Amino acid sequence: MDAINPNFKAYQAPALPSAQSLLTALRAGDRAALSRALTLVESKSNKHRELAESLVHLALPYSGNALRIGITGVPGVGKSTFIEAFGAYITSLGKKVAVLAIDPSSTKNKGSILGDKTRMPQLAQNEKAFIRPSPSAGSLGGVAHKTREVILLCEAAGYEVVLVETVGVGQSETAVKHMVDFFVLLMLAGAGDELQGIKRGIMEMADLLLINKADGNNASNARRAMGEYKRALHLFPPNKNEWIPQVKLCSALNQNGIAEAWETATTFENQQKLKGHFAQNREQQNVYWFEEALSIVLLSAFYEDEKRHEAYRQMKEKVKEGNIEPLFAAYQLVSNLFN
Amino acid sequence: MDAINPNFKAYQAPALPSAQSLLTALRAGDRAALSRALTLVESKSNKHRELAESLVHLALPYSGNALRIGITGVPGVGKSTFIEAFGAYITSLGKKVAVLAIDPSSTKNKGSILGDKTRMPQLAQNEKAFIRPSPSAGSLGGVAHKTREVILLCEAAGYEVVLVETVGVGQSETAVKHMVDFFVLLMLAGAGDELQGIKRGIMEMADLLLINKADGNNASNARRAMGEYKRALHLFPPNKNEWIPQVKLCSALNQNGIAEAWETATTFENQQKLKGHFAQNREQQNVYWFEEALSIVLLSAFYEDEKRHEAYRQMKEKVKEGNIEPLFAAYQLVSNLFN
Repeated sequence: MDAINPNFKAYQAPALPSAQSLLTALRAGDRAALSRALTLVESKSNKHRELAESLVHLALPYSGNALRIGITGVPGVGKSTFIEAFGAYITSLGKKVAVLAIDPSSTKNKGSILGDKTRMPQLAQNEKAFIRPSPSAGSLGGVAHKTREVILLCEAAGYEVVLVETVGVGQSETAVKHMVDFFVLLMLAGAGDELQGIKRGIMEMADLLLINKADGNNASNARRAMGEYKRALHLFPPNKNEWIPQVKLCSALNQNGIAEAWETATTFENQQKLKGHFAQNREQQNVYWFEEALSIVLLSAFYEDEKRHEAYRQMKEKVKEGNIEPLFAAYQLVSNLFN
Repeated sequence: MDAINPNFKAYQAPALPSAQSLLTALRAGDRAALSRALTLVESKSNKHRELAESLVHLALPYSGNALRIGITGVPGVGKSTFIEAFGAYITSLGKKVAVLAIDPSSTKNKGSILGDKTRMPQLAQNEKAFIRPSPSAGSLGGVAHKTREVILLCEAAGYEVVLVETVGVGQSETAVKHMVDFFVLLMLAGAGDELQGIKRGIMEMADLLLINKADGNNASNARRAMGEYKRALHLFPPNKNEWIPQVKLCSALNQNGIAEAWETATTFENQQKLKGHFAQNREQQNVYWFEEALSIVLLSAFYEDEKRHEAYRQMKEKVKEGNIEPLFAAYQLVSNLFN
């Protein structure tokens, strides 16, 4: 909550010279300008927030043109190695790729390992790739909203593919699912414990299940797992968007299956655009983030004021213990707010 | 939204004589009193809402003692027949069972077929069973909150098992999942289209997959499907509550598999209570509904006033079309509200 500083004065969006010049520079391909713009967006300072809003507003007409791909999987599954290979392949096709991350555990003091350039050394030196670690914020909501703004600015800067990495914990997958077009679940083939640590519900979110480390001694294991998951996915109810989730193998280390993974993503994109689902999904996502933002902004009234926040905490505790009915509790709390 | 009438005056919960007497009567087993109490809770009138809140508040210490079971499945899967058989079996064990429903499409003019007594004729005449159709309200949120209050009152009236039926559309499963202890997905065995019409994500919510109509010519089909779903469920990540979702057969028509379904529910209950997950889940649900209610109550400020509601609608449209960034849009809207 501390990352979102609601400005309840009627907000005018002046086209500040510095916002406009930043935009012009990043649109022209100036990487340093893009970095400065993203730092602005990720900043917690009120003054920066005003400028950031202005910048994002100006950038909006130039955004939206990338294919947004979410990538999740448990720690140890090889996400960094995969993103390095995947990103390299995409740039070899002549496309610029931005690599972002959502890590709600990332704070000012404890950085995030996601989107860490040291884990993707070659990609970090690739001219056509831009890597940015997760923003830090007080809450997942704050991190998610900032990441969305980062996506918009990267798109305005001409990046045609945006990868958003997250780990399989907490609620970050749901957030990522709501901000990407195509969602990849990276997995291992093991002794039946393939999805240990993955939150339930994520399998059904995935458009592509990618079984990594399908090499060497593990190759037959991986093929077996692929068969099992294909059969399992077949039992799921069909997607409204008519996409049949795919299961494929890859070995990021040996650079196998990388081109096929990209082809799956582009096949998805083409099919979805043909059927009109692509644009519809983007619209629904916009509305989702609007409702989310509204809740956050309204609720932040409870966080501005320490007394109100304490009242909120105490009420939540009473509700948790079952001593007061939730709806009644909400009425009481809000009636205090408005008095 | 029109079903929730926020009372922003500081609310005192007086123990009105009629609320207390209603509670005393329904606790004593008076079915008519319970019906009157539920009608009060489901009413849209402001005056009734005050009395209902009072009643629910008084009933709270006497609630919470039932096993709450959610039942979903596509239309045609045989939910009514199953609930009739399941309810009859439970009462044969000497337990009182309440049968409720959540149907967001239910409105004042178009009733709901869920929880319709005519579809459960024998259970409707069973002294130990109490059937109540879905409340109607302006939104799923409204219906869900009222259903929760209905559950609390039925428990105060001594019902030891509460069944909550819903159809597999919209978001009602998520709502039901958040208000029950045990979640049953009723399915058919077919030609591979078993889950046609079920929303994605529901399979991973289920604690028990029950394949219905496992009789006659369909018996081998059903067994095959059971095997496939067992294998598929095995591939899912494990539940945090350590419960392994079960897949079983039943024929509601022939009364087969009904006792086994009940045993699965009680096995679940015992295991979860032993491990402390049962109470923890109830706590989490309470908090979930508190946060939901808070959002609803705060957002309803946008629905009280027609001008504000229009501003909200217009802003939502601009966001949908991608012409304004969602967080910025929320700030603008709220700054107008507070000015």
